Amino acid sequence: MNKIIIATKNAGKLKEFKAFFEQYDMTAYGLDELDKQFDDVEETGTTFEENAALKAETIAGFLQVPVLADDSGLEIDALEGRPGVYSARYAGEAKSDQANMDKVLEELQGVPAAERTARFVCVLAVSQPGKETFYARGHVEGVITEVPQGEHGFGYDPVFQPEGYEKTMAQLEPAEKNQISHRKQAMVHLEKWLNEQAK
Amino acid sequence: MNKIIIATKNAGKLKEFKAFFEQYDMTAYGLDELDKQFDDVEETGTTFEENAALKAETIAGFLQVPVLADDSGLEIDALEGRPGVYSARYAGEAKSDQANMDKVLEELQGVPAAERTARFVCVLAVSQPGKETFYARGHVEGVITEVPQGEHGFGYDPVFQPEGYEKTMAQLEPAEKNQISHRKQAMVHLEKWLNEQAK
Repeated sequence: MNKIIIATKNAGKLKEFKAFFEQYDMTAYGLDELDKQFDDVEETGTTFEENAALKAETIAGFLQVPVLADDSGLEIDALEGRPGVYSARYAGEAKSDQANMDKVLEELQGVPAAERTARFVCVLAVSQPGKETFYARGHVEGVITEVPQGEHGFGYDPVFQPEGYEKTMAQLEPAEKNQISHRKQAMVHLEKWLNEQAK
Repeated sequence: MNKIIIATKNAGKLKEFKAFFEQYDMTAYGLDELDKQFDDVEETGTTFEENAALKAETIAGFLQVPVLADDSGLEIDALEGRPGVYSARYAGEAKSDQANMDKVLEELQGVPAAERTARFVCVLAVSQPGKETFYARGHVEGVITEVPQGEHGFGYDPVFQPEGYEKTMAQLEPAEKNQISHRKQAMVHLEKWLNEQAK
């Protein structure tokens, strides 16, 4: 035993037990701290698949139950696929949507419309104890606009114009975005897999 | 699969996944909801051992890690051991310390000092996957006073005078109480067991 869960929400008792078990080189966690153990699972992978699996497999290994994790990002062809797995922290660890978009638009300065192709990618990983991890990948193709437009969504939505639309993702209504989004496409694959499992 | 953990703290994503998995009769939990699954583990046992084990074993079975749970209460001899496992809710589900003490004092009205003997009991249960549950029981003997006294502690502390003391538990300083308490006694047994395990 090197870790033990203390089944209490009483802060005083928990503190006492933590100090007690520390003497035995054991880490005691309270029930409301179960998630804190996973805060330090870092996204160190070089692909969306690796990052999603890293998280899902770590948590499933601990909890011994199925776990779904996702990783997603934006791939811009003119930037050789960047920001990719670094999408959330492209302009630094502060993870600012505005700073990230500014950086991308600056790097694309002078690049003509026809060469501003890009795609949002989402990978869902489902890890089950004792089984191979299942991956579902979804994507939505589009182009990077010259300036941010729209107020909905988050991330790079204001500079991404999906194929067949004259609006950016951030100009689409949430329900409309959700119908075409990369996550939606990945969930279609997940759905198919779940249906096969159920057979 | 009938349950799945969604490794996200994003409320919007979580809501979407919950609705999605519901179609497959699966319950999806977010990382910060891991403890909520155990809220409904009811203390339906008739002994402290049963209640502590029920909680520890349920959670250990789910998490596959060692879990410690405790159950404790007050046994009054003149009341045939009551309130016992019902100590926290003796006067009703509202779990009022004051109402519980009032009920006990009323039931003991007219009972002479010599017959007001009682004890606080604490049982710790440690459940480890694939192993027998370990129990540590501690108790502190005393008498029930005529009126509540003291401001420290909680529960029945103001009406319980431990053996060898002229004060109630609630009149003792916390550090002093912790040295003689039923939980402390149970932890002495737990400590002995841990030392044996480490050999």
